[in-house]
Amino acid sequence: MSSTKKYDLVVIGGGPAGYAAAIRAGQLGKKVACVEQERPGGTCLNWGCIPSKALLKSAELYNKIQHSEDLGITVKGLDYDFSKIVGRSRNVSETMAKGIGFLFKKNKVDHIIGTGTINVPGMVEVTAGKDKGKILSTEKTLIATGCKPRRLPDLEVDGERVMTSRQALEMKKQPKSIVIVGAGAIGAEFAYFLNAFGTKVTLVEMMDQILPVEDHETAAVVERSFKQSGIDCRVSTAVENIQVAAKNVKMDLVKGDKKESITADSILLAIGVVANTEGLLSTRTKLALDRGYVKVDENYESSVKGIYAAGDIIGPPWLAHVATFEAVQAVNGMFGHGKPERVREFPGCTYCLPQVASIGKTEKKLKEEGIDYKVGKFPFQASGKAVASNQPEGFVKMLVDPKYGEILGAHIVGSDATEMIAEYGLGMKLEATAEEIHNTIHAHPTLSEAMMEAAAAVFGEAIHI
Amino acid sequence: MSSTKKYDLVVIGGGPAGYAAAIRAGQLGKKVACVEQERPGGTCLNWGCIPSKALLKSAELYNKIQHSEDLGITVKGLDYDFSKIVGRSRNVSETMAKGIGFLFKKNKVDHIIGTGTINVPGMVEVTAGKDKGKILSTEKTLIATGCKPRRLPDLEVDGERVMTSRQALEMKKQPKSIVIVGAGAIGAEFAYFLNAFGTKVTLVEMMDQILPVEDHETAAVVERSFKQSGIDCRVSTAVENIQVAAKNVKMDLVKGDKKESITADSILLAIGVVANTEGLLSTRTKLALDRGYVKVDENYESSVKGIYAAGDIIGPPWLAHVATFEAVQAVNGMFGHGKPERVREFPGCTYCLPQVASIGKTEKKLKEEGIDYKVGKFPFQASGKAVASNQPEGFVKMLVDPKYGEILGAHIVGSDATEMIAEYGLGMKLEATAEEIHNTIHAHPTLSEAMMEAAAAVFGEAIHI
Repeated sequence: MSSTKKYDLVVIGGGPAGYAAAIRAGQLGKKVACVEQERPGGTCLNWGCIPSKALLKSAELYNKIQHSEDLGITVKGLDYDFSKIVGRSRNVSETMAKGIGFLFKKNKVDHIIGTGTINVPGMVEVTAGKDKGKILSTEKTLIATGCKPRRLPDLEVDGERVMTSRQALEMKKQPKSIVIVGAGAIGAEFAYFLNAFGTKVTLVEMMDQILPVEDHETAAVVERSFKQSGIDCRVSTAVENIQVAAKNVKMDLVKGDKKESITADSILLAIGVVANTEGLLSTRTKLALDRGYVKVDENYESSVKGIYAAGDIIGPPWLAHVATFEAVQAVNGMFGHGKPERVREFPGCTYCLPQVASIGKTEKKLKEEGIDYKVGKFPFQASGKAVASNQPEGFVKMLVDPKYGEILGAHIVGSDATEMIAEYGLGMKLEATAEEIHNTIHAHPTLSEAMMEAAAAVFGEAIHI
Repeated sequence: MSSTKKYDLVVIGGGPAGYAAAIRAGQLGKKVACVEQERPGGTCLNWGCIPSKALLKSAELYNKIQHSEDLGITVKGLDYDFSKIVGRSRNVSETMAKGIGFLFKKNKVDHIIGTGTINVPGMVEVTAGKDKGKILSTEKTLIATGCKPRRLPDLEVDGERVMTSRQALEMKKQPKSIVIVGAGAIGAEFAYFLNAFGTKVTLVEMMDQILPVEDHETAAVVERSFKQSGIDCRVSTAVENIQVAAKNVKMDLVKGDKKESITADSILLAIGVVANTEGLLSTRTKLALDRGYVKVDENYESSVKGIYAAGDIIGPPWLAHVATFEAVQAVNGMFGHGKPERVREFPGCTYCLPQVASIGKTEKKLKEEGIDYKVGKFPFQASGKAVASNQPEGFVKMLVDPKYGEILGAHIVGSDATEMIAEYGLGMKLEATAEEIHNTIHAHPTLSEAMMEAAAAVFGEAIHI
């Protein structure tokens, strides 16, 4: 059975790029469909950012209760229900996914359930799933199929011994021990979460620091905290010779010429992502790709006129907020609602405790690129709010152009880092100088004052250090 | 015994204005003394912002533990030690005060302990306290004596039955019931704190809403939450005929023509502040005052040349961060380090749960002033981070100039409002438009996205509502 319907836009993929694009097109009064094989929300909402934050919230509270005596509060019989924690996380995803469904209706987006394949430009065929067989005729097509967790060759992901983040988010049973391969944001967040509830965690990273894209100083604070809380952090270390048995997984940890054999209940692969292009294009449609990602021009248009792409499928940084921004820009552009902006600066966040958030360049990057910079740093230990909140760990660090004072990079590690970074984000967007941030009245007592003080510290004018 | 010493600057008062001024003058290489009768830090650090945040942190955790089952965590035997909670709060103040002492040393600030009296311009005499009798000769003088809690005539503050915030911050015993007079930030924070630990709280406000300086919609969210948690909120209500007995306090609550008699263990006066001018000036020095506050010009200079004033002593808004800003500006100006800025926009925060933070004008104010505006609003219920964090209460509201899109006011109520407001603060400082905030990539998932979505909502372009 097939049917055709003339759309202004068909979006393939219902994640942060896809659903945002569809909603935005709906806002612009366009006739739009979103083809998604699962419920809307994509990896982010269903298998990533959102459910992981729910898990982390439980871990955070559990940790806080363990230290509640510091705040004059005592409990007996602290306990947790792992399946309830995971269950709540799944419920949160479901609630938010329903919200997207509601927004689709509100904005008159047709939700087509299945795999969208671009047959020829202007024609999307549903090749699998509930709506299989439907053919959608469309003016423009946006590819927003995103990415999926990278796996290792010859290592079956069974969801119990071997997991990616997807399976880990619906773990039925808490592993007693786990090796997490990859200490980026996802690996670090799972390490924090599982360790908080008593899983013996070994966190393995090939690069020479955990959180390898972050500034070395913020990563060092997290590593120190992780080690103190019992996480076994291994950097400059490769995982080799993984052997899955019925009740455990064995592998070698290789660092330089040292090899150590290790056994754990499970292994979690957090080693990056690969583009979702399977089934996307019929043999009659060819798009220029770059290392597997769809190549786009400054208007997010691919090598084929009328076919656009946005989000993870056009390559790094693989962040939901970047994907949404790109998608909205692409849609605005394709329907004449302003010239699309390409992404310049964007924040990156890791939600373990202490949290890490950053924008712009790291010190290492600035050095590599030979860019001159000044540093302004303010420790939370000198922040009244941080001390009053019993969270004096971490700091704010600004890297500033010495001539004009513009922000080149900003790095925050501490309890509320992921919210605080928003101010620097706006600052970079508006090309604010450190002096302007220093001269902005920040509420007292807040952690955010540290961002003002770090700016002041660039000139040696911080009051509280 | 007397001694004279020639200073560039003598600061009278060691609070957020005074200590910041002294440190700033030290940074500029000036010879500076700070005359303070108690340990440095002023009301804010010792008897206000900082210790109250420590108390609130305990209350917040206690509340969260009471609802920990939502997050899959169970406890038995939840208990608290009131004296430990208050003790920690006192320790936090002590730690921070020591920090100021350290900064005084680092910046070569002479800390003179006592009451500073301006004898004649250029001469400050220590008229009480440890350093009584010292006479400080100085080029310039900065008055930063701040304010103290307002009391009621004929009502003795005994620290048990009758308190101001000062006594409440070192309560020896938790009252079983309390009437808090005044539902501004201080009253609301004590109401939240004491109610969290089971004190029966009646919160009485003369104006027609709690948090009377806040936008009516944010205040309404707090009032609803307070009522749900058992706080008896009374607005448009006056407290009359207060009778202190040995074991309780009786009073009448008067609303319109209704009068109700009420009895409680204690009464807490949170009815504003009065200027600290006692002993500040000898009979030989006269300064122009305005309703009790020192009148200053655009350089923070009083009616007498060489005598400056900053902070609460020059009048509202009586906020620590405003005081610090003014003091630093005043010092910069007096020593030729740029033209001092006067305060324009400043954030205001209340740290109960849900928190309230705002900057700029309320809707009511805009209407009163006949200023045209557009509203952009985003509820945290539609925020993935808020839902994942189990904190979907509240919203972000932006009030925007319809022509240029500049922010006229911003109002946040929710769990992290007091940190989030920083971005709008920078936005107002830089005269950012709602469109610029909307087009700034905000990290996902964060509560801060709500600030971007509220900006988008001004134009009907929010994705998630």
